[in-house]
Amino acid sequence: MIESSPAADLPFAEFAKRLKKLQAYQKREKLDALFVLTEVNLYYFTGLTCDNGVLLAVRGKEPEFYTDFRYIVMAKRKAPGLKSELIWSARDEKQVLADKGKTWRRIGYEGKISASRFLSLKAAFPDAEWIDVSGGIMEMRSIKSPAEQRVMRRAIARNDDLFGMLLGQLEFGQTEWSMRAFVRRACDILGQGEAFDTIACVGANAAECHHEPDETVLTKGKPLLVDLGVRVDHYCSDMTRCVCFGRPTKLYTELHRIVHEANRAAIKAIKPGVPCCEIDAVARDYIAKAGYGKAFGHSLGHSVGLEIHEMPGFASTCKTPLKPGMLITVEPGIYLPNRAGVRLEDMILVTRTGCEILSQTPHDLFL
Amino acid sequence: MIESSPAADLPFAEFAKRLKKLQAYQKREKLDALFVLTEVNLYYFTGLTCDNGVLLAVRGKEPEFYTDFRYIVMAKRKAPGLKSELIWSARDEKQVLADKGKTWRRIGYEGKISASRFLSLKAAFPDAEWIDVSGGIMEMRSIKSPAEQRVMRRAIARNDDLFGMLLGQLEFGQTEWSMRAFVRRACDILGQGEAFDTIACVGANAAECHHEPDETVLTKGKPLLVDLGVRVDHYCSDMTRCVCFGRPTKLYTELHRIVHEANRAAIKAIKPGVPCCEIDAVARDYIAKAGYGKAFGHSLGHSVGLEIHEMPGFASTCKTPLKPGMLITVEPGIYLPNRAGVRLEDMILVTRTGCEILSQTPHDLFL
Repeated sequence: MIESSPAADLPFAEFAKRLKKLQAYQKREKLDALFVLTEVNLYYFTGLTCDNGVLLAVRGKEPEFYTDFRYIVMAKRKAPGLKSELIWSARDEKQVLADKGKTWRRIGYEGKISASRFLSLKAAFPDAEWIDVSGGIMEMRSIKSPAEQRVMRRAIARNDDLFGMLLGQLEFGQTEWSMRAFVRRACDILGQGEAFDTIACVGANAAECHHEPDETVLTKGKPLLVDLGVRVDHYCSDMTRCVCFGRPTKLYTELHRIVHEANRAAIKAIKPGVPCCEIDAVARDYIAKAGYGKAFGHSLGHSVGLEIHEMPGFASTCKTPLKPGMLITVEPGIYLPNRAGVRLEDMILVTRTGCEILSQTPHDLFL
Repeated sequence: MIESSPAADLPFAEFAKRLKKLQAYQKREKLDALFVLTEVNLYYFTGLTCDNGVLLAVRGKEPEFYTDFRYIVMAKRKAPGLKSELIWSARDEKQVLADKGKTWRRIGYEGKISASRFLSLKAAFPDAEWIDVSGGIMEMRSIKSPAEQRVMRRAIARNDDLFGMLLGQLEFGQTEWSMRAFVRRACDILGQGEAFDTIACVGANAAECHHEPDETVLTKGKPLLVDLGVRVDHYCSDMTRCVCFGRPTKLYTELHRIVHEANRAAIKAIKPGVPCCEIDAVARDYIAKAGYGKAFGHSLGHSVGLEIHEMPGFASTCKTPLKPGMLITVEPGIYLPNRAGVRLEDMILVTRTGCEILSQTPHDLFL
């Protein structure tokens, strides 16, 4: 068996820079303390993978990392620049923090922690004001550093390879479920697994945009929609293509053309300073003018990074202006229940002058 | 390629029974309304897999299911006995619930939803009292029905097969990472993927009980610890074994014997009515008497079901009395940093008179 290596981490200097940014954010927001508790943000700031850790940033001090006996050896080895201490089991967390933080009045927390954990922490600091810092952290994560861009370019190139591998072994009679199995295996060879559960839809199944792969079989002339991504060194990729072996129907060819043109029109409009909602509107208007406005029920795209869905996104409600270093999907779609579904998704990088399309697989795949 | 089928669901009658139990619970707890929002509990009560749904139980009415356009067709098809309606995007959730619930005073919610979702719901019902129902739901889930037991027996039997497959292809020079890759692939063949990230530790790596598989290679005389599980039709299995090709050290043989005996002593004590903490104590005392008390840093076991970690567990703090139908792991361990680690984990089913050991792979694997 050939398979990839375990995920490589960026050098600790990269994480050290992020910690500096976190401290600057904390100062700006006048937070006496800031708790980072979710796995993904713990990884973002420390490079440590750990399901029970606390990154504690106290104003005016260096950030500290606390974890339990299972992870402390790894923490000291992988993050030598970070003060790591073994202090508590999950049960003691509240008490230990309360003892440390008698003077804390404004505390930053992540809105994604569970309600029960939040309520328990809140009870330990009855007089503190609690500020959700998720948006602030997501904003930092939205700009990919040069080192992150290099990793993501690799993840996206691997995703093109993955799609080629899938295409190379397709045959009539194959089920959606077996395509999913192939992609999962290939993702372990090309990287460290799927970036998300692979979607494979034959024929009208593509009209359900979160269709779960079933035992529908590929036949001649039936279009196939595949939405797939591979995780490489912690970073995700994401791409959707629609292919057809044999001549598709006139309707399908028409939908495919409209979606392709909506995708290209939106991409053409991407440049720094433009609010995300305006890019969404370009594709939406294009599809609406073609007569399928109601058949495009989701947003045009989402940022991608350590997680498959990050902010900002090309959504009608997202006013965030684009900035160089953002990595976002462009994925218009048209879904006609019980008839057909088309989606064409690319990943783009916002540059100083416009954008670069990173996904290299062609759109036109009628074979 | 040979691979399993997509996960099969239990018949809807099974979910209908669970919904009845939920209603009885709601009545007992005098909850005007109860929101089920987490994916796992939505699945448990409805059989629907959906990352944006609300199961709304209003006292005195039949439970209703709400979701968005992506899932409504699937919901009506798979849960014909459940009233399913398409009403909102995530943005409207709060407003729609507030309109429906002007008279609700006691509302049940799951403590595992995110703090931000909880705070948003809470703001919509400023006068309501909020009751965390997670414990109550977990209690229902802790007793596996006969149908669930049948599925879990299959998942556990597949896990024995999986371990045999792994063993059959091991060779000196193989890395932990490649064992993980093999197990992942085999889990897709035997079921629907891993139940959790496979742990494979060669030699002293086993002393880190959450060691991530790396490129350490298997050599003669070096023990191997493998902790693995396969997901079959939505249910998880879990087992740990320690094997050695060639003669292990005296110390290792001794640790293996102590852990094996602690496992058997604990299992012998399992019967309905006994509090979970007493079972934990049996293994803990045994290991302590053998001189390794401080080297057993985790709990003795956890329940398993739709999730790999459920309640109750064999932990020093868990006073829940055992009941027939509970399915729990027994996994004592001894960890000596930089030297060795041993853990032996079986899944047991609590019966009316005692328990049944479901994991069939022998403990003694010095080959």
